[in-house]
Amino acid sequence: MCDFAVGLSRQLNGSIIPSERPDHAMLEVWNPLGIVGVITAFNFPSAVLGWNACLALVCGNCVVWKGAPTTPLITIALTKIIAGVLEKNNLPGSIFTSLCGGAEIGQAIAKDTRISLVSFTGSSKVGLMVQHTVNQRFGKCLLELSGNNAIIVMDDADIKLAVRSVLFAAVGTAGQRCTTCRRLLLHESIYDKVLEQLLDLYKQVKIGDPLEDGTLLGPLHTKSSKDSFVKGIEVIKSQTKTPARFIGIGLEPVFCLALRQEVKSCTGGSAIESEGNFVQPTIMSTYLVELCFPESCFCKLLVLSSSIFTQRPEAIFRWIGPSGSDCGIVNVNIPTNGAEIGGAFGGEKATGGGREAGSDSWKQYMRRATWAGF
Amino acid sequence: MCDFAVGLSRQLNGSIIPSERPDHAMLEVWNPLGIVGVITAFNFPSAVLGWNACLALVCGNCVVWKGAPTTPLITIALTKIIAGVLEKNNLPGSIFTSLCGGAEIGQAIAKDTRISLVSFTGSSKVGLMVQHTVNQRFGKCLLELSGNNAIIVMDDADIKLAVRSVLFAAVGTAGQRCTTCRRLLLHESIYDKVLEQLLDLYKQVKIGDPLEDGTLLGPLHTKSSKDSFVKGIEVIKSQTKTPARFIGIGLEPVFCLALRQEVKSCTGGSAIESEGNFVQPTIMSTYLVELCFPESCFCKLLVLSSSIFTQRPEAIFRWIGPSGSDCGIVNVNIPTNGAEIGGAFGGEKATGGGREAGSDSWKQYMRRATWAGF
Amino acid sequence: MCDFAVGLSRQLNGSIIPSERPDHAMLEVWNPLGIVGVITAFNFPSAVLGWNACLALVCGNCVVWKGAPTTPLITIALTKIIAGVLEKNNLPGSIFTSLCGGAEIGQAIAKDTRISLVSFTGSSKVGLMVQHTVNQRFGKCLLELSGNNAIIVMDDADIKLAVRSVLFAAVGTAGQRCTTCRRLLLHESIYDKVLEQLLDLYKQVKIGDPLEDGTLLGPLHTKSSKDSFVKGIEVIKSQTKTPARFIGIGLEPVFCLALRQEVKSCTGGSAIESEGNFVQPTIMSTYLVELCFPESCFCKLLVLSSSIFTQRPEAIFRWIGPSGSDCGIVNVNIPTNGAEIGGAFGGEKATGGGREAGSDSWKQYMRRATWAGF
Amino acid sequence: MCDFAVGLSRQLNGSIIPSERPDHAMLEVWNPLGIVGVITAFNFPSAVLGWNACLALVCGNCVVWKGAPTTPLITIALTKIIAGVLEKNNLPGSIFTSLCGGAEIGQAIAKDTRISLVSFTGSSKVGLMVQHTVNQRFGKCLLELSGNNAIIVMDDADIKLAVRSVLFAAVGTAGQRCTTCRRLLLHESIYDKVLEQLLDLYKQVKIGDPLEDGTLLGPLHTKSSKDSFVKGIEVIKSQTKTPARFIGIGLEPVFCLALRQEVKSCTGGSAIESEGNFVQPTIMSTYLVELCFPESCFCKLLVLSSSIFTQRPEAIFRWIGPSGSDCGIVNVNIPTNGAEIGGAFGGEKATGGGREAGSDSWKQYMRRATWAGF
Repeated sequence: MCDFAVGLSRQLNGSIIPSERPDHAMLEVWNPLGIVGVITAFNFPSAVLGWNACLALVCGNCVVWKGAPTTPLITIALTKIIAGVLEKNNLPGSIFTSLCGGAEIGQAIAKDTRISLVSFTGSSKVGLMVQHTVNQRFGKCLLELSGNNAIIVMDDADIKLAVRSVLFAAVGTAGQRCTTCRRLLLHESIYDKVLEQLLDLYKQVKIGDPLEDGTLLGPLHTKSSKDSFVKGIEVIKSQTKTPARFIGIGLEPVFCLALRQEVKSCTGGSAIESEGNFVQPTIMSTYLVELCFPESCFCKLLVLSSSIFTQRPEAIFRWIGPSGSDCGIVNVNIPTNGAEIGGAFGGEKATGGGREAGSDSWKQYMRRATWAGF
Repeated sequence: MCDFAVGLSRQLNGSIIPSERPDHAMLEVWNPLGIVGVITAFNFPSAVLGWNACLALVCGNCVVWKGAPTTPLITIALTKIIAGVLEKNNLPGSIFTSLCGGAEIGQAIAKDTRISLVSFTGSSKVGLMVQHTVNQRFGKCLLELSGNNAIIVMDDADIKLAVRSVLFAAVGTAGQRCTTCRRLLLHESIYDKVLEQLLDLYKQVKIGDPLEDGTLLGPLHTKSSKDSFVKGIEVIKSQTKTPARFIGIGLEPVFCLALRQEVKSCTGGSAIESEGNFVQPTIMSTYLVELCFPESCFCKLLVLSSSIFTQRPEAIFRWIGPSGSDCGIVNVNIPTNGAEIGGAFGGEKATGGGREAGSDSWKQYMRRATWAGF
Repeated sequence: MCDFAVGLSRQLNGSIIPSERPDHAMLEVWNPLGIVGVITAFNFPSAVLGWNACLALVCGNCVVWKGAPTTPLITIALTKIIAGVLEKNNLPGSIFTSLCGGAEIGQAIAKDTRISLVSFTGSSKVGLMVQHTVNQRFGKCLLELSGNNAIIVMDDADIKLAVRSVLFAAVGTAGQRCTTCRRLLLHESIYDKVLEQLLDLYKQVKIGDPLEDGTLLGPLHTKSSKDSFVKGIEVIKSQTKTPARFIGIGLEPVFCLALRQEVKSCTGGSAIESEGNFVQPTIMSTYLVELCFPESCFCKLLVLSSSIFTQRPEAIFRWIGPSGSDCGIVNVNIPTNGAEIGGAFGGEKATGGGREAGSDSWKQYMRRATWAGF
Repeated sequence: MCDFAVGLSRQLNGSIIPSERPDHAMLEVWNPLGIVGVITAFNFPSAVLGWNACLALVCGNCVVWKGAPTTPLITIALTKIIAGVLEKNNLPGSIFTSLCGGAEIGQAIAKDTRISLVSFTGSSKVGLMVQHTVNQRFGKCLLELSGNNAIIVMDDADIKLAVRSVLFAAVGTAGQRCTTCRRLLLHESIYDKVLEQLLDLYKQVKIGDPLEDGTLLGPLHTKSSKDSFVKGIEVIKSQTKTPARFIGIGLEPVFCLALRQEVKSCTGGSAIESEGNFVQPTIMSTYLVELCFPESCFCKLLVLSSSIFTQRPEAIFRWIGPSGSDCGIVNVNIPTNGAEIGGAFGGEKATGGGREAGSDSWKQYMRRATWAGF
């Protein structure tokens, strides 16, 4: 992101536009906002800061950062590194400031009229409150909220590729990414085959210290996360055959899904009795009838990131077209997780609509003036 | 706008981006939002609709329009014209739908989850409520709210040009544009000269039926507008010498202005006793001390549109730079009013932050997906 | 093109660029070139003029047009229409001027220092001469030269779709488009099937007056074209088994092709004895050994337009990637011919490298100045 | 340039374009050219290589570089540095190759069909030959040729600023930049004042070893340059009163200049008798009649870089508009020399038309394919 932003710093271009009025000119000029507030979450304690701060700084802004309350050491360490770089270049270290603390700091940032833009990463519920507070004072928001991401495996998919991708997207980083795969939609003709291969892989998952070679599944971040997992499983199991919204791991009502049978636990579903907040890699399944994939409404997934596995070009192009996925991130034959700084990162609807990294995200950290005159 | 949008319809381009991952590709694809709601105000009963609907339609959306409650005939006439064009081209006329009515229709649009984007033009107060309602359901907003626009005349300005521009910007369309000049800031060395010439022009203003040749000042839109004018003048006159916010015609506190003497009525200030909602062209003046134009904070005007009259290139470039005007529309040697469809139209802060017309406003009527795969 | 260009006329934007030098600004400004010369060919007597003149005119240039010597009536008619439009808008009709005549007019345009850009459509040989003349006087060229376009049909292709596409691309407009398919490369596993179906379709081709319903194959443009066809067939037939460049219908040496057997005439190959310059729809075939499609050099086709028929996504993405087709126009599952004004039209190498229509072709009709100062 | 190009490497974006054809897509994809040849001049033995090679390499090309025959050590040193970086990153060092030698190497590069693009910096005469050779084989050229750059000082200019700028632009680096000021056009009302101040500054110029503190004027690059200087002065002095092209320091005929009196030597004009190729800082002057600056043709300067000194905004905007300077680089109140990597560098007409650095120059190092299909 630093390399990318440095290159970008020579391309923060506005426009000069021919005017309809003779002997006049028009300009669209981008100027810095002033102070940008960045509120990040525990799961990417430095990456999301990097996406925001690198762009905000080359755009000429100051940055006030609030890291997660559970990752203060990273917040302090990063701040020291950045201050050092600034001061080496004869700039005040205070151009980049950080705060350790909880919701009260977040609220102070949201309310402060001196902070022109608040970039928030976290839950949809808190994000909505931040947005309301910031809007009341006519400030700007950039939201990256939670995603209930799904992978669809079509009947013609490369099964082996799909299964490995699901494993990595669902179990990697203990499912704590915003792009983690939380739902798997299988065409019935390959349902059994995929499930069988997936269960086979799940059995081999090495659980333990993520710093050790070969470990795929580390612990959850806190005791509270572990408790939430256990409670979520109970809610899912209590689901009956009635056509119902799939709470917890969740299936959005837009699918008009009806459950053909009860939710079945295929593997996992429990916390692990040990030191550390470990839980089992888990698969819950159900059969669905009338899965609504009409041509005219190919598939609406109200999530941050989505993925389809198929080998048909026409399916791929429908998937990325107007009637396809309406996620912000749309993958084909690769998992839901993963991102590149060259492409805009962000979701639609309940995920907030913001975009980070990518070639034009810098515009969110600046204000535009349309200038006319002669 | 129709011509512009038709040309634009062949340029709704996304990006194909080289991927860091070997044998992978990335795409940023723009797809239509679905249904776009447009709520417009009385003062531009068709232009603002055009800005929004032309772009929304070529982007592949349907449009639901609510015109102002006081301009239903224009709403109906325009809708018939558009339906005719659609049907001539074998498209359902209902792609563009309109509704006549008041706040209850606006609220229904704001609440309706089927309407992905609500474009609202009107007061800051109502705009804020619309935004909150739309955000709660994770919809998008495009706001064009009111502006307290100012013209600055510097000591080196072409006075004759400035005075004529002020007249047109303040009195034209009876001051009912969102870009109408509501505040005039004069350098003290040219204060008397400008005021004298302006008063001279004001005396010659022809008041009456705007359809008659030579009329500059027509009536206000409603009886209620006339009453507001009279009340506003009273509030301004009650201002005393204490350092105070200049309510009504208003000077923002950021200027740290102090009044050196009472507000003085220079000309006008009354409603006109006649049929129709006519008021006098009015100038209220005061002297200011400590007008804060430090180099480091050249001039912050929290309004939609602003204008400066000066002949110094360095003043012009400071004016459009980071420490200059923070309006969305920044004019030099032309009045605050007026706009071109090639440049983005819209303001900052209390004016809502939306942008209409201009070469990239179409992106607000679409959703972007970042696609990765192989 | 007129609609497109009118919309584009509000988007001829340059850039304003933040400067590294404090208190400085940089601008990239686009200004018109002055006079643009357009030399077009007989086969699209008005479309290519439209691509060039519409953009050149909205960019603020005057246009001098030389149509083909064999289509003077179209040249005169179009000029009258355009002059009428200009004059109706109070602009001098002479902004757009045309000349009927042959090579001597073309040479005069190429040599004239008052003509800043010469856009030439025609043969590679003449294009090269025009370019040299224009470059000598430091003028600019925009070349659209001939293409030896190929369609590749892979083993997994939708054969029926491919065969119909080849028919249309090879026989339609009597093969006189610059994007006409002139070579067909078949995977050996589907060779017989494709050839059989194609011969079947060729038998049904209705030859005659193109204004009559159902006619697919009209006459060649001139007697001289008919003679060239007859001579070309003779040259092809004289090809022997030696590894050789395939002249006439031609296969580029980059393919390292060796002929396994003599060229065989499958159907057609003669002129038709009748009034008018009619020739038979013709297929010549040969088997090839060692067709060089290594992974590292997927397929280099040195032509204007190319097309592949396949249903494998990975083949499609390789085809449009660095090791795929190096044509300017790269089709997938559609024929070589056809174009849209939203996409840039033009080829590489022997086809000249120019680009017409599309969203940034207008830049070729303007000159750019990088402005710096304060 | 390395930092800039690394950032740029995540933004080499093509377009995805909505197709007019239902269920079709269009893409404009950029792919590397293959091998890029770079031929640079003695005066910037590494900067111009950097402009070209950094962009060419991040675009995925290999580079073959020919430095100037008189600067082989720099060529070898840079090549070693670059090879080291490549190999440290597990890339073959031969991605970047260089050659030391003269015209025969340049010709070999121009002729080699494996080299898709030849970027040439040098004289207009040689550039034209390179272009012809490369075009014959349908290769691409990027030319940066010599400039006869002029500074105009208007009657309202800040004289002190202008004079210092002229000194630096004319005498700095011994006048051996492509952007060196070679002509000075003075408004008659300030002619005497500028000349007097300039002569005063010229007297203080410290001539000597450029590595010593305070030295402004170092030696010319070769003995041959020194001889050319002496010969050029003789040609200028032989100019008579007849309306004539001003050879040597030169005034383009487009100015329709007539000499009012003989050319007068104001200062300098001789080589310095010493070891090293030193010459005197030199000013030759003449009075001009009928200097043609009509409104309709503000000023045509057929050079790489130009500069105007004035304080009138309307003069500045006319200067950068359609009737203003037609140079590629247009300065205002700063000298002709100097450039930033964020803005495109290059000239028009006899300077070749290429553009280096800047945000879209990378496109010259790639080929574009317009893809259509489904």
